[in-house]
Amino acid sequence: MTSHPEHSAVTVLGLGPMGRALAGAFLAAGRPTTVWNRTPGKEQELVERGAVSTRSPEEAVAASGLTVVCVVNYDAVDAIVRRGAVTDALSGRTVMNLTADTPDRARDTATWAAEHGIDYLDGAIMTPTTTIGTPGAVFLHSGPEDLYRQHQPTLDALGGTHTHLGEDIGRAAAYDIALLDIFWTAMAGYAHALAVAKAEGVTARELTPFAKGIGEILPPLFEQAAEEVDSGRYSGEDNPITSAASSMAHIVHTSEAHGIDASVMRAAEGLARRVIGRGHGTDGFLRITEIMNP
Amino acid sequence: MTSHPEHSAVTVLGLGPMGRALAGAFLAAGRPTTVWNRTPGKEQELVERGAVSTRSPEEAVAASGLTVVCVVNYDAVDAIVRRGAVTDALSGRTVMNLTADTPDRARDTATWAAEHGIDYLDGAIMTPTTTIGTPGAVFLHSGPEDLYRQHQPTLDALGGTHTHLGEDIGRAAAYDIALLDIFWTAMAGYAHALAVAKAEGVTARELTPFAKGIGEILPPLFEQAAEEVDSGRYSGEDNPITSAASSMAHIVHTSEAHGIDASVMRAAEGLARRVIGRGHGTDGFLRITEIMNP
Ligand SMILES: NC(=O)c1ccc[n+]([C@@H]2O[C@H](COP(=O)([O-])OP(=O)(O)OC[C@H]3O[C@@H](n4cnc5c(N)ncnc54)[C@H](OP(=O)(O)O)[C@@H]3O)[C@@H](O)[C@H]2O)c1
Ligand SMILES: NC(=O)c1ccc[n+]([C@@H]2O[C@H](COP(=O)([O-])OP(=O)(O)OC[C@H]3O[C@@H](n4cnc5c(N)ncnc54)[C@H](OP(=O)(O)O)[C@@H]3O)[C@@H](O)[C@H]2O)c1
Repeated sequence: MTSHPEHSAVTVLGLGPMGRALAGAFLAAGRPTTVWNRTPGKEQELVERGAVSTRSPEEAVAASGLTVVCVVNYDAVDAIVRRGAVTDALSGRTVMNLTADTPDRARDTATWAAEHGIDYLDGAIMTPTTTIGTPGAVFLHSGPEDLYRQHQPTLDALGGTHTHLGEDIGRAAAYDIALLDIFWTAMAGYAHALAVAKAEGVTARELTPFAKGIGEILPPLFEQAAEEVDSGRYSGEDNPITSAASSMAHIVHTSEAHGIDASVMRAAEGLARRVIGRGHGTDGFLRITEIMNP
Repeated sequence: MTSHPEHSAVTVLGLGPMGRALAGAFLAAGRPTTVWNRTPGKEQELVERGAVSTRSPEEAVAASGLTVVCVVNYDAVDAIVRRGAVTDALSGRTVMNLTADTPDRARDTATWAAEHGIDYLDGAIMTPTTTIGTPGAVFLHSGPEDLYRQHQPTLDALGGTHTHLGEDIGRAAAYDIALLDIFWTAMAGYAHALAVAKAEGVTARELTPFAKGIGEILPPLFEQAAEEVDSGRYSGEDNPITSAASSMAHIVHTSEAHGIDASVMRAAEGLARRVIGRGHGTDGFLRITEIMNP
């Protein structure tokens, strides 16, 4: 580990809820922190806590050896860093991109970085802003192992657990996509459940203790299902997909009887019906993983 | 509580995975247990453990004061109990229907029961077969309070927690629909995530520890979201719906780039886009609950 002053200083580009949380954690850890955001005003509280705010992203990246980028997606990343002055200022420095996007975009950004002499790490944040700086935060990383090790002190400042998934730069994004898929689909299901419950005269507050119970049974079932998927053996012995499809039909029916959009559940039921139609009705629901590929 | 011998005896109609688990718990609790299933053969192990098997459902219900019904849906329930001989045999006795279906069907069944002098309780089982007879089981009930109290010793034999949701006979089914909505939507998201991960070279086993982490953050987020829905104030301060929609688009894109069906996520993204299109892009994702009703 070298001891350039740049290694302790850190720049954060993007001050949405997550960028602000990251910059706040660096400040709390005593790191000299420089911040920039496209739209001014969001740096206020961070500056009061000791952050340096710059007028341009090129000034911001010049202040530190490491720049953490956290904006809405890679179109926004590109709009900030793929401009002459910023790219030039980043040369010889490290970018840690904690913006969410696709594995393809991560690979493309790594190629761009290599072409411009920029060291590049890609990462993903799997937990809400409130976890940043606490043990509850979960970060995934990919890229060159030695570069990752070099910046571990920075990661420590962010709290939580950090996992280096490998040198393939797209790997953090691949995990991110899969995990966000679980997260947003589940949240869509929850939102829909609350709409149906409301139509049935049940408030969100009444349903919540039981909804939490459903949330709690998911992790062990995820584990069990993973074994089925990796082995290709989907036991429906305890709960056949025909039973699941029947429940799904009840949900669609009740929902639509109240005039509530059931497009998400309709799509899920469609996958189950396809498995049954192909003669696998006694298998478990997870067999739908095998018919999503054409 | 009366002390007819019938009150300790119990009949179970339906010996799918769940019916067998229920009958097994009654036997384990020392209750005289009579069982019947449309297709013979599934009673074998229960009979070895002391259950009495009958050749017809009317014989089965005549053996006990309480009949627990647990089959795939209410069409199946009707096919069994709405036949002269069975209906006659049930008159003056209690049916506890632990089959999943819609609130409408529960209400309709209660009407039929009342017309035939049958005491009727409706219920739903919220946990897998392996939880039955253990503290992990979760049961929901609705119907006449005094009838429910009268059969509490039976419920004790099934283990777990039992909640009487009220006298409206459709209430257990309403909760059931909403909770299964969360469950099956989340499982569909998980199955899809595993398919995408696989296409990216990530096995289910590799993803699982992180997938479990996603499952673990859901319960507290469910609680927070419930307050938003009941109050109608959807704060996007920590995570605006525009950011969620961006993630959803990445999931759809990555999925379809691998030729994987993304119909479930497409539907969920569609709801988010509708909220944004109506000018609520700075709100949180849960605002979709408000646009599902037309
Ligand atoms: N919030 C969470 O709970 C959470 C959790 C895990 C991961 N993440 C990820 O963290 C990243 C940041 O999320 P966030 O919650 O902070 O908010 P966000 O709404 O996803 O992103 C807002 C940030 O993106 C910037 N931005 C958007 N378009 C831009 C453009 N064309 N040029 C320059 N900047 C642009 C915004 O700048 P302006 O202020 O100028 O618009 C703002 O700094 C996202 O990839 C998100 O998926 C967030
Ligand atoms: N398994 C679970 O983990 C679980 C968890 C919570 C709730 N539940 C609920 O419990 C109920 C039973 O589920 P299950 O897992 O035992 O299996 P299931 O596959 O949902 O139901 C199978 C049972 O339904 C009977 N059946 C189907 N059609 C019939 C008809 N027309 N006439 C008579 N009987 C008919 C079957 O009889 P045959 O053997 O003759 O086909 C068998 O006894 C469902 O409502 C389910 O949603 C299950």
